[in-house]
Amino acid sequence: MSEFDLVIRNAHAATAADVFDCDIAISNGRIVALGKSLGSGRQEMDATGKLVLPGGVDAHCHFDQETGDDSVVADDFRSGSISAACGGTTTVIPFACQTKGHSLREAVEEYHRRATGKAVIDYAFHLIVTDPSEQVLGQELPALIRDGYTSFKIYMTYDALKLNDREILDVLSLARRDGAMAMIHAENSDCIAWLTEKLELAGKTAPHYHADSRPAVVEREATHRVISLAELVDVPILIVHVSGADAIEQIRWAQARGLRVYGETCPQYLFLTAEDLKLNGFEGAKCICSPPPRDKASQAAVWEGLQSGVFQVFSSDHAPFRFNDPKGKMVNGTDATFRNIPNGIPGVETRLPLLFSEGVGKGRIELTKFVELTAANPARIYGLYPRKGTIAVGADADLAIWDPDREVTITNSLLHHDVDYTPYEGMTVRGWPETVLSRGEVVVANGGCIASPGRGDFLKCECPTPARPRPSVSA
Amino acid sequence: MSEFDLVIRNAHAATAADVFDCDIAISNGRIVALGKSLGSGRQEMDATGKLVLPGGVDAHCHFDQETGDDSVVADDFRSGSISAACGGTTTVIPFACQTKGHSLREAVEEYHRRATGKAVIDYAFHLIVTDPSEQVLGQELPALIRDGYTSFKIYMTYDALKLNDREILDVLSLARRDGAMAMIHAENSDCIAWLTEKLELAGKTAPHYHADSRPAVVEREATHRVISLAELVDVPILIVHVSGADAIEQIRWAQARGLRVYGETCPQYLFLTAEDLKLNGFEGAKCICSPPPRDKASQAAVWEGLQSGVFQVFSSDHAPFRFNDPKGKMVNGTDATFRNIPNGIPGVETRLPLLFSEGVGKGRIELTKFVELTAANPARIYGLYPRKGTIAVGADADLAIWDPDREVTITNSLLHHDVDYTPYEGMTVRGWPETVLSRGEVVVANGGCIASPGRGDFLKCECPTPARPRPSVSA
Amino acid sequence: MSEFDLVIRNAHAATAADVFDCDIAISNGRIVALGKSLGSGRQEMDATGKLVLPGGVDAHCHFDQETGDDSVVADDFRSGSISAACGGTTTVIPFACQTKGHSLREAVEEYHRRATGKAVIDYAFHLIVTDPSEQVLGQELPALIRDGYTSFKIYMTYDALKLNDREILDVLSLARRDGAMAMIHAENSDCIAWLTEKLELAGKTAPHYHADSRPAVVEREATHRVISLAELVDVPILIVHVSGADAIEQIRWAQARGLRVYGETCPQYLFLTAEDLKLNGFEGAKCICSPPPRDKASQAAVWEGLQSGVFQVFSSDHAPFRFNDPKGKMVNGTDATFRNIPNGIPGVETRLPLLFSEGVGKGRIELTKFVELTAANPARIYGLYPRKGTIAVGADADLAIWDPDREVTITNSLLHHDVDYTPYEGMTVRGWPETVLSRGEVVVANGGCIASPGRGDFLKCECPTPARPRPSVSA
Amino acid sequence: MSEFDLVIRNAHAATAADVFDCDIAISNGRIVALGKSLGSGRQEMDATGKLVLPGGVDAHCHFDQETGDDSVVADDFRSGSISAACGGTTTVIPFACQTKGHSLREAVEEYHRRATGKAVIDYAFHLIVTDPSEQVLGQELPALIRDGYTSFKIYMTYDALKLNDREILDVLSLARRDGAMAMIHAENSDCIAWLTEKLELAGKTAPHYHADSRPAVVEREATHRVISLAELVDVPILIVHVSGADAIEQIRWAQARGLRVYGETCPQYLFLTAEDLKLNGFEGAKCICSPPPRDKASQAAVWEGLQSGVFQVFSSDHAPFRFNDPKGKMVNGTDATFRNIPNGIPGVETRLPLLFSEGVGKGRIELTKFVELTAANPARIYGLYPRKGTIAVGADADLAIWDPDREVTITNSLLHHDVDYTPYEGMTVRGWPETVLSRGEVVVANGGCIASPGRGDFLKCECPTPARPRPSVSA
Repeated sequence: MSEFDLVIRNAHAATAADVFDCDIAISNGRIVALGKSLGSGRQEMDATGKLVLPGGVDAHCHFDQETGDDSVVADDFRSGSISAACGGTTTVIPFACQTKGHSLREAVEEYHRRATGKAVIDYAFHLIVTDPSEQVLGQELPALIRDGYTSFKIYMTYDALKLNDREILDVLSLARRDGAMAMIHAENSDCIAWLTEKLELAGKTAPHYHADSRPAVVEREATHRVISLAELVDVPILIVHVSGADAIEQIRWAQARGLRVYGETCPQYLFLTAEDLKLNGFEGAKCICSPPPRDKASQAAVWEGLQSGVFQVFSSDHAPFRFNDPKGKMVNGTDATFRNIPNGIPGVETRLPLLFSEGVGKGRIELTKFVELTAANPARIYGLYPRKGTIAVGADADLAIWDPDREVTITNSLLHHDVDYTPYEGMTVRGWPETVLSRGEVVVANGGCIASPGRGDFLKCECPTPARPRPSVSA
Repeated sequence: MSEFDLVIRNAHAATAADVFDCDIAISNGRIVALGKSLGSGRQEMDATGKLVLPGGVDAHCHFDQETGDDSVVADDFRSGSISAACGGTTTVIPFACQTKGHSLREAVEEYHRRATGKAVIDYAFHLIVTDPSEQVLGQELPALIRDGYTSFKIYMTYDALKLNDREILDVLSLARRDGAMAMIHAENSDCIAWLTEKLELAGKTAPHYHADSRPAVVEREATHRVISLAELVDVPILIVHVSGADAIEQIRWAQARGLRVYGETCPQYLFLTAEDLKLNGFEGAKCICSPPPRDKASQAAVWEGLQSGVFQVFSSDHAPFRFNDPKGKMVNGTDATFRNIPNGIPGVETRLPLLFSEGVGKGRIELTKFVELTAANPARIYGLYPRKGTIAVGADADLAIWDPDREVTITNSLLHHDVDYTPYEGMTVRGWPETVLSRGEVVVANGGCIASPGRGDFLKCECPTPARPRPSVSA
Repeated sequence: MSEFDLVIRNAHAATAADVFDCDIAISNGRIVALGKSLGSGRQEMDATGKLVLPGGVDAHCHFDQETGDDSVVADDFRSGSISAACGGTTTVIPFACQTKGHSLREAVEEYHRRATGKAVIDYAFHLIVTDPSEQVLGQELPALIRDGYTSFKIYMTYDALKLNDREILDVLSLARRDGAMAMIHAENSDCIAWLTEKLELAGKTAPHYHADSRPAVVEREATHRVISLAELVDVPILIVHVSGADAIEQIRWAQARGLRVYGETCPQYLFLTAEDLKLNGFEGAKCICSPPPRDKASQAAVWEGLQSGVFQVFSSDHAPFRFNDPKGKMVNGTDATFRNIPNGIPGVETRLPLLFSEGVGKGRIELTKFVELTAANPARIYGLYPRKGTIAVGADADLAIWDPDREVTITNSLLHHDVDYTPYEGMTVRGWPETVLSRGEVVVANGGCIASPGRGDFLKCECPTPARPRPSVSA
Repeated sequence: MSEFDLVIRNAHAATAADVFDCDIAISNGRIVALGKSLGSGRQEMDATGKLVLPGGVDAHCHFDQETGDDSVVADDFRSGSISAACGGTTTVIPFACQTKGHSLREAVEEYHRRATGKAVIDYAFHLIVTDPSEQVLGQELPALIRDGYTSFKIYMTYDALKLNDREILDVLSLARRDGAMAMIHAENSDCIAWLTEKLELAGKTAPHYHADSRPAVVEREATHRVISLAELVDVPILIVHVSGADAIEQIRWAQARGLRVYGETCPQYLFLTAEDLKLNGFEGAKCICSPPPRDKASQAAVWEGLQSGVFQVFSSDHAPFRFNDPKGKMVNGTDATFRNIPNGIPGVETRLPLLFSEGVGKGRIELTKFVELTAANPARIYGLYPRKGTIAVGADADLAIWDPDREVTITNSLLHHDVDYTPYEGMTVRGWPETVLSRGEVVVANGGCIASPGRGDFLKCECPTPARPRPSVSA
């Protein structure tokens, strides 16, 4: 029997279902054996006292993406993927964003150019459909789905991105027919515009009025609406970045009625509140994202939703804008009205340590649930499973080796993104990924990335749901 | 002590709260005394064995109204008000409908011209706001509210009528500030258009596909949406013509959360189903209205909603289109696709007998609840109370004297509207209004109208809800 | 036309549905006419600037009742009825309580002896069924219902009073067959006993641990249980003294499912909280009642339930125990454990002023809703309507003439009960009943009772719900 | 590297999270390696084309158990465990049932005597606590929990078994302190007794009246009640054999409020209805179990509950009574009233094939969900994980090798229990376990059991939930 490429000895490992102790043998980038006392490897690592988890799958992050205005996403695929890897993530799914009036296929090609030669870990693309023209719906999108771009995001707000209800129905109908997965940013655009104008007329332009311009009812309404549109079409959807109790109520209601409505939430809804937008004058801008963080009660509701299964996916929604930068949060200096401050928070590197420490460490969720939310489910829902998201024979050897007891005080200098702040500055967590492997190759060691940019592969996604005939309208 | 103008002897009378036996004395068009053995009247009537109820207030009927296409509402204020009176109704509140791009004030003046000299009973106007321009919101509407037009209807569907969410917020905001009441036609326009196109592409154009083009989820979505918009503005609203269980669930949910959301339903949702749109080939067109009638389970849900207080108002939504008429249901003959068949059903005369017979007569609702739903509540909610809607000293002597035992088989020849059919043809009811008084004057006797067109007065409505400062956006 | 006995001029009057201005003419104890400029009366009163309301019906008060231990209800029918009258109430429905092992009929006769010659206003009796023996179910109770005792209370807790589920089914089944109304004290007896023992073992015996011994879940459970038992039997029930959000949720859920479940609440759940049991050492005992007052959020929920129609009845649950009295709250001096402190609070006189001031005066409920909750509905639900509970021709002239603007600071010396404290000491209310009439006779003038004990009549109650055949078990 | 005891080649295997292809190596009864091209085994099996699943864990089955009357459970540990094994189950958890007035420890010893030398697969015991005396609560139960009997069942009905609410609180309180798991049979005993008597008085004694004697509301009430008791104590519970929509609504409501309430359902609630109790005269007795099967809508609700996560466990509730046997269903011949017919249905062997065929095969649930419900979750919840319930390195080699395409028509002659019927006679399923291994030993081959009675080991269970201090009563 031949030698393995690599054997990780004495792993205390977990999947979405199981926790077990064994050696892990890797050859040709894949896990080839799990066992006690496995044969030798050309390379060996000892994981005694460590936790070996599937590398995280971050299904919601923005790298090198168009923003539709002057602001600039700070991370490209190099810094973004390095930051992800250093946080225990081995797969990212950023967005390829169509510009209204332009080809979706061209957008995909352009984003491939941006990724090529840069990523240190594997990546897939979600599409952002902003202009479901006849050309897009009739030709480009079906072809792209066949080519492995099987999920797309729909915005219900932002002028440059949003679709109206009819366009959403068209896109969902295509998702149903071709088996793709639709992700929804659910906020009511008209309400936000109306409130924003009212706030500005009242001279309320400081950063924290951002939260007042997008109250929970605005998110709840859009959530109910898109659930209704999906019910009409009879197609699964996933509501992204759910912020609190009101939207959760709608999703739970839909799930109880048997509708296949999935939910995603993010660290900002567990660890920040709207109060954070008020702190330190303009510093509150650092915590501006959409939907905005809510309050302590909503944080509790989000934890409860993670525990009870309302949420399937926990992502970062990493949207990296620099603070001291005229192309970032400081777009117009401290005179900027909240309307002009780019929406988004960095977090691709802190996602897993925050949830591990406060979730697993403090007994709120089990370790298997952690793996399910951060790796297995996003891989499944977006068609990357079983290649990604688990520790099983045949899966890619994408592994994060955690020191579960290491205490780390988060500070921006520690992080590898290209942003000048972290909203979690000063938080202490317990547990950190020390060594990270991608397809059997060590990409992070001693907390630093040692991989060459460009080694990350593009991943074609399978269709996550069975393709079905176009829905009958009279059923 | 001087003589009364009229004394009705031995009345068995009911209000929204009470059932009592007494004489009713009337002078100068008003009720001036209720009592045992009241003094004499210049005119006297004996109501022994009869039921004396407040004349009905029909808060939802369309008379001589623009339809935005070639079809024509068959009833003008003469035939419409006569039909109403013969059905026991003494107050109607039809609509003055703005045309997009035109003045709302001018629309009101035009509808006054249409009503003047024709109505046999008193009437007020709801406004239909289709174009909330700066001129309308800033000047016309506030002035009209001050002039006694204190309620307006907002459409969420129909291209010629609908407002978008932002316009709805503007109009609701004005309603809040000035104390007016907004009535909402809640159906999702985009969904209807999308489904209609799909049905037509599939060749499904027969009348009954109308129901498939507007399924319950389409109404439920819009109901949740407008509840959310009203919650944002913090203003009461009334959802009109609620058709079944799904929309009821949303309204009940809002009410349980303490929101002031009122509900109206109509006879068609108690007595028709979508199956009726399938009957007898094109005859199904007779039952086309929006939202469409649903199914038996929804009928039960609507009854339950009437009993338990989800609904405050029971109206006719009388929208009289002739069947055999190229300007009515037969717009293009029997080749018409459902899309072109005008939406609406006649019912101003049958509203009260149907609810009385099936509701009170069969023990589903109490007599006081009947009065509440059909007279007292619409008067209150639209600012006509206590002048209309009750039997109390000081109120207008608008009375309907019912024979509670009279059996009537409904047939169109019996009715007084200017429509060539009734959807309730052949139904037998028990209980019918025999004599009807408007301001103390007998307008219906022996089932026929004996009043002169034009005797009906225009009623200025009070503001139903307290005017309040424009809502703060940061509360 | 002959003179009236009494005419009240210029009344601003209200019923459960209407507010109107008129004179009110009374003869032979009944309202015989309502009108403008009615003929003369042998006696006349001017109500200009006052409010004339139906006298209150207090459907839940304990006068001269057995308590099953050494404690003594302080008010007999004299002091109790005087206190009620002075608070604007003209009808009381205290309890005739069966002792286990004894005849229910004998209990009724005994309570008649206690009432006779003492009451200044009219009264009926609810029965308390504590021992549904064959004799009671087979003979006594059906006969008593025929004799005008048409409602009975069932306790789910208190050893001396409680019925088990099977006994409740038997009693509800009889209520269904004979058309009687069952009132339920819903708390889980076993839970209370278990918690009480645990608290005592932990040395937690101070008055405020009473609230810990009966948390909201204990009331919620029993509420759901008895709703289920009533659903099985298919009979209406009324849940008395509902304390907060948890029980409300169950009642609302039942009502939404179409079950006829009525709800009653009381002033203590609007104006007290569990914190009041902690104040001033043993003084907290003054606020001990069952279920205990909850928290501010529950107060808000109870207000919301009054507004939205979850509750039909607002009673006092007047259970008058003296504070400084070894047969009252001070049963064993300040060493008493909470278990031994009698459960109950005085409130028959403050019920209406508190709700009027905080409800009507502060815009939380309308005046008609006030009348509905405090007079019309209890009269209807317990079979005293239309004789009691409204201002209508033919009704008893039971009227309370309120000065809506009078400010009164509640202090025990002001009240007429035979208790040495009021839990509302020091609260200032706006609005007070100045003159009260019972069957046309002034019983309260200038805030003092001028009626002779014994003038109050016993009232036979009608069956509030239609008698129906014993429920089929296989339906 | 030494040889493995056994290698299963080319397995297509599944856990609760993963589906993967590999060889499975077994030594000393445990899985020691999973991998591609593993080294050789002394024994080898080829699983090409088969499905290798964790052996089922049937957490609810009755073997050789006291019934409290004359009836006799037909299966002892030999026939019962053989039947289980032949159906793909490798672990059973029958009950050791205390007799009221007797020692629980003695009961356990007696059931060990019954199991010893008979079982062919491993087994643990749930306790049935029928008499929580001071001795039992203070000494026996804590010691038994320490000894590996960490779950117990509480009955809310059956005179010989039921606990009252106070006893339930005591037992739940102990479960909380010591970390045990309580299983609840939730039906309201009083309601059942009352309905049964009513039915018998009406001469309604045929088998199908069993369902009328235990309608859904009876189960719903007890479900809400025990949820409340557990909420009071703050302890997880598991509701066993949930039959339909009403009880599901309560469990879902509790879960949404963050309570740790688990649910179990059984094949009879997916495949039978109350109608089956009516078929073929007395043959309906074959389908008598408690709670009874409901209707088609409830079957759909149970499927939905399995899909959406309301249920964690799918068990058989195998309660084997013979049909043609005076100690079985035929207790008094065909004259037996439903009251005397023993409650229970055989199903330990058909549990997995039914769910596999109708659930996995027809696309209602995924294969991983099948493993989770039937093996992983019961192992976890009852403290047998990770030894049982998964395919992972270190786990017992309890494996069922299924032919996923084999069609089997269920007929009693095919089954290995000692009962003379199956309620699923004639149903055709697709998928059957062909070979079953227990701790690496083939116990079923070619559909027949080849194991020696007595080879099954008793399993001590871990505490499934953390032990916690006795609950504070004032928290």
